[in-house]
Amino acid sequence: MAEKKMVEAITSMEDNFSQWYTDVVHKAELVRHSGVRGCMYVQPYGTALWENIRNELDARFKATGHENVMLPMFIPESLLQKEKDHVEGFAPEVAWVTHGGSEKLTERLCIRPTSEVLFCDYYAGIVQSWRDLPKLYNQWASVCRWEKTTRPFLRTLEFYWQEGHTLHETAEEAQAETEQMLNVYADFAEQHLAMPVIKGRKTDKEKFAGAVATYTIEALMHDGQALQAGTSHYFGDGFTRAFDINFTGRSGKVEYPHQTSWGMSTRIIGGIIMTHGDNSGLVMPPKVAPVQVIVLPIAQHKPGVIEGANAIADSLKDIARVKVDASDNSPGWKFAQWEMKGVPLRVECGPRDLEAGTCVVVMRHNREKITVNISDLPMQIPVLLQQVHDGLYQKALAHREEMTHTATTLEEICSIAKTKPGFIKAMWCGDLACEMQLKEQAGVTSRCIPFEQEKIADSCICCGKPAKEMVYWGRAY
Amino acid sequence: MAEKKMVEAITSMEDNFSQWYTDVVHKAELVRHSGVRGCMYVQPYGTALWENIRNELDARFKATGHENVMLPMFIPESLLQKEKDHVEGFAPEVAWVTHGGSEKLTERLCIRPTSEVLFCDYYAGIVQSWRDLPKLYNQWASVCRWEKTTRPFLRTLEFYWQEGHTLHETAEEAQAETEQMLNVYADFAEQHLAMPVIKGRKTDKEKFAGAVATYTIEALMHDGQALQAGTSHYFGDGFTRAFDINFTGRSGKVEYPHQTSWGMSTRIIGGIIMTHGDNSGLVMPPKVAPVQVIVLPIAQHKPGVIEGANAIADSLKDIARVKVDASDNSPGWKFAQWEMKGVPLRVECGPRDLEAGTCVVVMRHNREKITVNISDLPMQIPVLLQQVHDGLYQKALAHREEMTHTATTLEEICSIAKTKPGFIKAMWCGDLACEMQLKEQAGVTSRCIPFEQEKIADSCICCGKPAKEMVYWGRAY
Repeated sequence: MAEKKMVEAITSMEDNFSQWYTDVVHKAELVRHSGVRGCMYVQPYGTALWENIRNELDARFKATGHENVMLPMFIPESLLQKEKDHVEGFAPEVAWVTHGGSEKLTERLCIRPTSEVLFCDYYAGIVQSWRDLPKLYNQWASVCRWEKTTRPFLRTLEFYWQEGHTLHETAEEAQAETEQMLNVYADFAEQHLAMPVIKGRKTDKEKFAGAVATYTIEALMHDGQALQAGTSHYFGDGFTRAFDINFTGRSGKVEYPHQTSWGMSTRIIGGIIMTHGDNSGLVMPPKVAPVQVIVLPIAQHKPGVIEGANAIADSLKDIARVKVDASDNSPGWKFAQWEMKGVPLRVECGPRDLEAGTCVVVMRHNREKITVNISDLPMQIPVLLQQVHDGLYQKALAHREEMTHTATTLEEICSIAKTKPGFIKAMWCGDLACEMQLKEQAGVTSRCIPFEQEKIADSCICCGKPAKEMVYWGRAY
Repeated sequence: MAEKKMVEAITSMEDNFSQWYTDVVHKAELVRHSGVRGCMYVQPYGTALWENIRNELDARFKATGHENVMLPMFIPESLLQKEKDHVEGFAPEVAWVTHGGSEKLTERLCIRPTSEVLFCDYYAGIVQSWRDLPKLYNQWASVCRWEKTTRPFLRTLEFYWQEGHTLHETAEEAQAETEQMLNVYADFAEQHLAMPVIKGRKTDKEKFAGAVATYTIEALMHDGQALQAGTSHYFGDGFTRAFDINFTGRSGKVEYPHQTSWGMSTRIIGGIIMTHGDNSGLVMPPKVAPVQVIVLPIAQHKPGVIEGANAIADSLKDIARVKVDASDNSPGWKFAQWEMKGVPLRVECGPRDLEAGTCVVVMRHNREKITVNISDLPMQIPVLLQQVHDGLYQKALAHREEMTHTATTLEEICSIAKTKPGFIKAMWCGDLACEMQLKEQAGVTSRCIPFEQEKIADSCICCGKPAKEMVYWGRAY
């Protein structure tokens, strides 16, 4: 019974991408739906993936001088309301605690949808002098936003993330921090998740509630929709003035620190699935794969086969995350299951292989098979994992390039938006009116104003006035 | 200003233990109070301590075959009510979410006070056959209990913990799991935190809501009050029947799995403080200390001193968590600050030391000073850290032994309870009435029925009927 469920074909991505996604997250045993709308039971395989993401990001944060803290999940209503834009952005989508035990609270508490105001309240108590700056803090937490429609990882009521919050003496330092952390995210996405991203700035319409500027990394999913994969915000001193966080500067004058925040969430798991997955299921980027190598004994009832498989796994245990599947399921079922789970490398060893001192290594993403001497495996596996990583990255990059279009007239952008999924590059004058018109007529929103600009035309694609910037437009998760 | 705050004397523990505790948690920069009653801003130093605890426990859980999952923070009211004893135990102390955004929820959600019912709901969907067992899951999370009076770490509305939840085919297996995890906690407390503990079973009155049996490790704090430092519960099949979790057994019959849960929380940080701390502040057990070695350059304005201190730190960076304090604070202030933070070893190096190729190592817990050749430090530091660990453990054990009393009559236990803080060992018949009477007359509660029994007398200290067990009694946090 349990076996059948796993090997049943999943919906093909060409037929129904959304259903394919749902099939994959469940059949690869990443999550199950919980009894609370929009909340996940994240299964061991999904949790292990998130832990690998977390550990690598955490190491990168610590290497750039950040420390972790833990702030409460509750925000008193009055605290949330201290910064005007922020409360307007978030109040409509928070969960409210009104009772503790049997007693009604005198002030409602919201479950944090993000923690800017908590960090501000904390910072107000610990910053007095320029010597106390910078404050470079991060926290790993779950937050809650009361979304109308939800999908596992992509949009859930409760989601897991990290949120960095920093205070700096000067605007320049804060801006440099914002940029540094965007680069950390971009490098992590590309070097660790094999996910090519475009770095840029959000338009004012799309920026974070309360931010002066929001920077983003945008990835293109297999179906041509964009995913905001990580963001880094520059706040100026808006929050610090609202929360009366100030310090005695070097010159003895009272000053307000400049602030940033930056976050990456479990949403990135949705991005991994939709960047690399195929009609056999998940394809895990090797560096975060919970299992990097699955060893399958073939004809395992024959003497010495399971022992041989275990010996292979043993020889790799300090080199890769390796597992042997010696269960009594059929080889065909095992192939399908571990492909569904997206394990980068499968090592097959049968009696004849073992006798010859060889095994067959199959790469998940392109099904290439090679025969390797068992004694060479400890040397070969890291090389093959890197090869898989590079292959995934190149494939995703080629796909994105193929799906990136250019438009110079309103008719053209409408026609492309209707017929070709993907990014559309077009010039923009910077006016909200044009941004709104493109949403209405072409059905696309601005994804980002990329740091790497190209001059496609002189005038705004919408109003014809002189263009300020080239913008990536598209549909997004 | 900031300097003064740190070196101001703290309240002495003999004068007011409770105020001493409060002073230490704040002056060692572990936590600050947040704007929400009973919730903490856990500062970087406190968070780093919790991370060291978490990483070690997590490794021990994984080594015993457990996997992590992440379940939601919300429990629908109807789900909480499925197991009678459990809901009675927890409903009075949960926080209720009644609104999401601007809309009133049709069913209230509580913030998890613990996750038995969520795990049951999850397990109901994934357990069908005896082949699916055991399920050995754990999660790291924060939970919320609406406590009336709170103290940092010891009792907070929101606290951080891990909760293991497991399902087994047989009662025997589940009982073995319960015992195994209690041993993991005891070993962790003693070998990692230098905190001696007594292993035992809770009386029915003190056991967890819904459990068949609760096992505990009990530690004795410096002031003679007990701290329940970790618990492991055996549930039988009460929850699995209530939640209709069943499986087809080996014989083909439908059976109900046997369940356990076990947890350790940020409360253990309160335990570390009150076990090892002294009137100069914290004393960190070396294995979890965020900083294990602080290197202080003496007369640091002289040429080569800071370089010498940095070279010492460099030589130790793969051996211990080491930090150099080359700030412009005075040596006296630095000594006081790092003592307040409880760093196990202080390395002092001045110009003459460096010239002679030596340095002075001072142990935090007993102030012993030794002169060590700088070139020997990489070999000596691990030895000294182990020596500190052993010293702390022996000191705490001696203190507990000194504070453990024996009583054989009601008058005696009342008199000891009034005059001598600590544990009191006394015989018990097993009746709730006697347990209640001891609470009323002597002001003590049962801490545990220790696995290591001694026969102090034949009859119950309270009613004089034949005694069943020797019990540790005391006051507790």
